[in-house]
Amino acid sequence: MNNEFIFAIDTIWVLVASALVFFMQAGFAMVETGFTRAKNAGNIIMKNLMDFCIGSLVYWCVGFSIMFGLSHGGFIGEISFFSTMNIGHLELTIPKEAFLIFQTVFCATAATIVSGAMAERTKFSSYLVYSFFISLIVYPVVGHWIWGGGWLSELGFMDFAGSTVVHSVGGWSALVGAWVIGPRIGKYNSKGQPQAIPGHSLTLGALGVFILWLGWFGFNPGSSLSGMDYNGISHIFITTNLAAATSTIVAMLITWVRYGKPDVSMTLNGSLAGLVGITAGTDVVSPMGAVAIGIIAGVAIVYGVEFVDKVLKIDDPVGAVGVHGVCGSIGTIAVGLFAVEGGLFYGGGISLLLTQLTGVAAVALWTCSTTFLLFKVIQKTIGLRVPAEEELKGLDIEEHGIESYADFQPKSIPNMSNI
Amino acid sequence: MNNEFIFAIDTIWVLVASALVFFMQAGFAMVETGFTRAKNAGNIIMKNLMDFCIGSLVYWCVGFSIMFGLSHGGFIGEISFFSTMNIGHLELTIPKEAFLIFQTVFCATAATIVSGAMAERTKFSSYLVYSFFISLIVYPVVGHWIWGGGWLSELGFMDFAGSTVVHSVGGWSALVGAWVIGPRIGKYNSKGQPQAIPGHSLTLGALGVFILWLGWFGFNPGSSLSGMDYNGISHIFITTNLAAATSTIVAMLITWVRYGKPDVSMTLNGSLAGLVGITAGTDVVSPMGAVAIGIIAGVAIVYGVEFVDKVLKIDDPVGAVGVHGVCGSIGTIAVGLFAVEGGLFYGGGISLLLTQLTGVAAVALWTCSTTFLLFKVIQKTIGLRVPAEEELKGLDIEEHGIESYADFQPKSIPNMSNI
Amino acid sequence: MNNEFIFAIDTIWVLVASALVFFMQAGFAMVETGFTRAKNAGNIIMKNLMDFCIGSLVYWCVGFSIMFGLSHGGFIGEISFFSTMNIGHLELTIPKEAFLIFQTVFCATAATIVSGAMAERTKFSSYLVYSFFISLIVYPVVGHWIWGGGWLSELGFMDFAGSTVVHSVGGWSALVGAWVIGPRIGKYNSKGQPQAIPGHSLTLGALGVFILWLGWFGFNPGSSLSGMDYNGISHIFITTNLAAATSTIVAMLITWVRYGKPDVSMTLNGSLAGLVGITAGTDVVSPMGAVAIGIIAGVAIVYGVEFVDKVLKIDDPVGAVGVHGVCGSIGTIAVGLFAVEGGLFYGGGISLLLTQLTGVAAVALWTCSTTFLLFKVIQKTIGLRVPAEEELKGLDIEEHGIESYADFQPKSIPNMSNI
Repeated sequence: MNNEFIFAIDTIWVLVASALVFFMQAGFAMVETGFTRAKNAGNIIMKNLMDFCIGSLVYWCVGFSIMFGLSHGGFIGEISFFSTMNIGHLELTIPKEAFLIFQTVFCATAATIVSGAMAERTKFSSYLVYSFFISLIVYPVVGHWIWGGGWLSELGFMDFAGSTVVHSVGGWSALVGAWVIGPRIGKYNSKGQPQAIPGHSLTLGALGVFILWLGWFGFNPGSSLSGMDYNGISHIFITTNLAAATSTIVAMLITWVRYGKPDVSMTLNGSLAGLVGITAGTDVVSPMGAVAIGIIAGVAIVYGVEFVDKVLKIDDPVGAVGVHGVCGSIGTIAVGLFAVEGGLFYGGGISLLLTQLTGVAAVALWTCSTTFLLFKVIQKTIGLRVPAEEELKGLDIEEHGIESYADFQPKSIPNMSNI
Repeated sequence: MNNEFIFAIDTIWVLVASALVFFMQAGFAMVETGFTRAKNAGNIIMKNLMDFCIGSLVYWCVGFSIMFGLSHGGFIGEISFFSTMNIGHLELTIPKEAFLIFQTVFCATAATIVSGAMAERTKFSSYLVYSFFISLIVYPVVGHWIWGGGWLSELGFMDFAGSTVVHSVGGWSALVGAWVIGPRIGKYNSKGQPQAIPGHSLTLGALGVFILWLGWFGFNPGSSLSGMDYNGISHIFITTNLAAATSTIVAMLITWVRYGKPDVSMTLNGSLAGLVGITAGTDVVSPMGAVAIGIIAGVAIVYGVEFVDKVLKIDDPVGAVGVHGVCGSIGTIAVGLFAVEGGLFYGGGISLLLTQLTGVAAVALWTCSTTFLLFKVIQKTIGLRVPAEEELKGLDIEEHGIESYADFQPKSIPNMSNI
Repeated sequence: MNNEFIFAIDTIWVLVASALVFFMQAGFAMVETGFTRAKNAGNIIMKNLMDFCIGSLVYWCVGFSIMFGLSHGGFIGEISFFSTMNIGHLELTIPKEAFLIFQTVFCATAATIVSGAMAERTKFSSYLVYSFFISLIVYPVVGHWIWGGGWLSELGFMDFAGSTVVHSVGGWSALVGAWVIGPRIGKYNSKGQPQAIPGHSLTLGALGVFILWLGWFGFNPGSSLSGMDYNGISHIFITTNLAAATSTIVAMLITWVRYGKPDVSMTLNGSLAGLVGITAGTDVVSPMGAVAIGIIAGVAIVYGVEFVDKVLKIDDPVGAVGVHGVCGSIGTIAVGLFAVEGGLFYGGGISLLLTQLTGVAAVALWTCSTTFLLFKVIQKTIGLRVPAEEELKGLDIEEHGIESYADFQPKSIPNMSNI
């Protein structure tokens, strides 16, 4: 009977976490649509929704086995269709289907990050092609390296809940996609200076951030795959929350000092930066270490977003590269510094830090090169970008034949003709 | 002690699921208000909220006993007020109060479906009367037949989480209500052709769909009433998610082919269609069967909505009849085809299929006839529909004396006079 | 092994509840921004977000020990930094870090209540100072009195989940803050009559209420700190839901009778009133008692809001004082009437009632006096209120340099120039 209880408790924990991580899709949808213009709102919603739907099917069909099938040389799992492979080597205390749904919602999280960075100018059909391949191969291979028994896990690389596996894969894909497709019309003036293009609803954007923060309470502690690990999951709640709170405050303070006013959207991104940053080491750093990582993430997001915007001159409408790519990577590296066992600052020497750097670099290299190839092939075949006229009109009208706020009546004098 | 653990684990599972199903009320509210016009937003919110509040009280007072009291001839449970009856015959491993709250949020789900179909023209007070009676009698009787030990459960009718009990009851009530009250002014032109009346916020509508999807992760696996059933609930997560993902993609593809563009609101309804469709057989179909049901639901929703709109000429602003009535019924019938044990396609013969057809037809008959009577009596006494002038002005102003977006300032030049 | 299961089950319960209570921050943000004007939306979001972030750090650093450290004379816990103190005297069946996160999200709930009452005119920096001190000292001291083994708990004061500890502390702080800062420009005309200042989005406000109701299913049953207490937590779900449903209906009916139309925002506040009201006695009252408390709360909110608005002439834009202060206090007192064991109406005599009155009064006195001092010091030093010109323009522009709906395009003719 004891074994039954262990399985039940661990399964409940993982399924509740899966539901919360699923809900992050709503968070991403609200953040990305809120931080962009009303004329593209429906299009962004569709991309987020389709990410998840395509990802759910593709990952079930093939991706899951690439990630968790028996390893071929530490690089890729043995493919078996429809998740039929044996995963006994993983020694789980939950059913395979609980593990599959948890991994599915993680895969979809990586995929959906890109939609924000490429928002307001990407062809819908082309986006679906990208979405198919990241869930099919790009993400599962990285997952295999780190969580599926591949070469990075053999090296001792630590990424508990996916700062690198999920977020940096999404972030680097976003960087490559936004670079290949080029900036939105009007983003850079004739002198190459970036222009602010404000989003249409900070309230929806903020709601999205709150939803994502909630989802992270599934993302991180769910990754223990065990409710029996009650000390571990409690600790993860604390470090996750402290890092996010700290990063939010730090990002706000920096904008306050630099711009004279506390910036709302950067502060909201500060929350996400802290959440992404702590994800790798949430189980092995102390609360104080979590605060330190929060400070680092809060600094990194402000300067990271500026660097992408002003130096690289890559147009990332929602700051996805800074949040997921930069903070995901830095957070992973920080484990080498702050891990209570093995971290440099805790007397563990430089070995773990070097491993972390190796893994971050390898994943960046893999992701950037495969997605570059992918986006280039799409660009040369079916095309990646909508025509300029469509971009100006808005993708909702041209790609979907609708307006997302067609009937909206602000300051409405009751409209007798609107029937 | 083992028994204590079983009760605790099962209760936690059911209560978490109850919270998620409760949250579906927010999902319905957002879908229904987002897909209709701004001038009626507050009214729709009020109907959704009142559904739940009235339902909670009525179901506790009487409905619960009609549904789960000792059976009178398989048709109706023995009434006892305030949920005081003995439910020992149900052999639950959760306290009665956990069972009551789970059933309460299910009842409220059935009730709230109708508000969308009758949106933008129904008198608020009349709607409250309807809401009272569906929670008092219409829904609990069906529930008794299928989940309370009534005649359909005796027949072996299978509806695990309520494609028929909850969704088809809501959907058929919606059909009757929308038919009795008639279309909105301007919905059909002088030649009887349907006119599109776009909603005021696709983003809120999409948020609602994401919330509903989340809620379904309580709705379906919660219906096992057991966290100890860890294999079952894990399986249910997978089939629920696969059907929904598939249906979304299929609905999108059909609109893309038929209209030349992937339609946002139909795709969103495609998600709900898949969720509704899989609900009956989520525990007994394979993942592949779930995909098949998803395909069926995705086809059914597009043609179902068109059929209601163009052929029946019944004005259902949010597609509730298609989603809940059509897909709920088809999903229930599909169990007779795809159930791994007993389904026609798995060598189980035609017996289960006939039982499923019988149940679907009986519930449709009961629901349509009782709600027809109900809506007709309301129509002849206190009236069902607001005056034309009120409909044109918007129900927010006339029914509630407010505008939902009174102060909204788009493209705002800071408004000095708005104090 | 049994002990391991108890800890795992109780920890899962508390952590899931913590996530739900965290999500109440999103609920408050949506309620407060929805019920106020668009020009201040970003500012309100920032205050809600910062409440939580500052509160998380401050409560972890110091507040937690003030609340749960060994008691100094029943008045205050022994301070120890970074939650390092021993809490063995609490005899918990969850890890300290699970307890800490649960208490953290409670603290943040108390803090965030005030932002609504002081909305649309409070300096951002000054608000942060307030937020720091309520989490540091005002809330933890009350928490110590009642939940940390302090003098009120010794007296037998009953406040299960915080009608007084959380909500009345927030509510009285809101009263004092709104009084000290004075009404918004235009709120009272030259004759001192209150003017309605409608909010900019009832749909967001309603979404917030649904989110808060969901969160309450963590707030109240989570306060048992035990999933093993399966009977208790099931009962709490029922009483919580019945009180909220009843209060919603009662508030609606009163406005219907008094104003001729069922008022949307007051009805939504009616839901919150019932939730706040039942929180103190949710574990010890019967379902019928919960309905009675719902009725009381539904009446109290309508007249409470009017009293603050018309008699006290204190401008509380979202009704926070009525919801949290009035209903929190009344709900706590009602435990003395309706507690099945010890309540006056159940033959328990007047003793518990007097204890409840004592506790409510003491907390009101402590909170009002400390926050009065706090707001006055802020007012005299860095200033509490934005300049009139800024208030008219909106705090988003002046405090944060943004417009929350900068690009919103209602009834959009696709805007070719908006690039």
